[in-house]
Amino acid sequence: MSFVLDERLRKDCFDLGRGDLCRTLLMNDSRFPWLILVPEREDVTEIHQLAASDRAQLMRESCKVGQALAREFGADKLNVAALGNVVSQLHVHHVVRYRSDCAWPRPIWCVGAPEPYDDDHLQRMLARLRTALPALRD
Amino acid sequence: MSFVLDERLRKDCFDLGRGDLCRTLLMNDSRFPWLILVPEREDVTEIHQLAASDRAQLMRESCKVGQALAREFGADKLNVAALGNVVSQLHVHHVVRYRSDCAWPRPIWCVGAPEPYDDDHLQRMLARLRTALPALRD
Repeated sequence: MSFVLDERLRKDCFDLGRGDLCRTLLMNDSRFPWLILVPEREDVTEIHQLAASDRAQLMRESCKVGQALAREFGADKLNVAALGNVVSQLHVHHVVRYRSDCAWPRPIWCVGAPEPYDDDHLQRMLARLRTALPALRD
Repeated sequence: MSFVLDERLRKDCFDLGRGDLCRTLLMNDSRFPWLILVPEREDVTEIHQLAASDRAQLMRESCKVGQALAREFGADKLNVAALGNVVSQLHVHHVVRYRSDCAWPRPIWCVGAPEPYDDDHLQRMLARLRTALPALRD
């Protein structure tokens, strides 16, 4: 397989491991619990370009991540989005939103700039995510 | 079935008809070809709350709409998103993006305000959409 993770995603995120289809990334923005699923398929920019079996698997992995995030972080709302205007490689954002967060009710991309994790916060976040999403592998 | 379309969606959109699961709406914003799919299920705010068969059907209808929009409008990119911070009833945006559009590369929600269709433009748009999405019914 010649899938290569986009350079920008690699730089902006921490790699949490893989499911059957997707690589799971944690966006380096401590303002929001924010995971990104990247189907490991070459040259795909839109969900509808995936084969039917991959679409079904993406739905399964997306719902698993969405459910785990909602439960672990007590989300008021999830934002699930495949945008790709800057990084065209297909990737699906899963963001925990609170009515009290700094961007509510606007989409997170409209407000402010990412605030990178400090080391302590990052370690705690990774531990929570590994417990909430035990099935990921390296 | 006691599904009732959210008041705000009803007010902001034109109703194009139904698929097997979703109502298809055209957002009244002439800046972007912009369709919204609303699964006709009561009290659902997140994709992962849908039954497995409904999730699969949403994926099918979403890809059908995405593919039709991309082809009919020669999209540079699609933006597909379930946000719901303002209207919590589950609804999935499908927006045609061009590198030349007024918000590129930002998400559409971050820039400007909706520009309602004039009657002539609306009729042309509805005709194109009915041809591109022939399977919808009232």
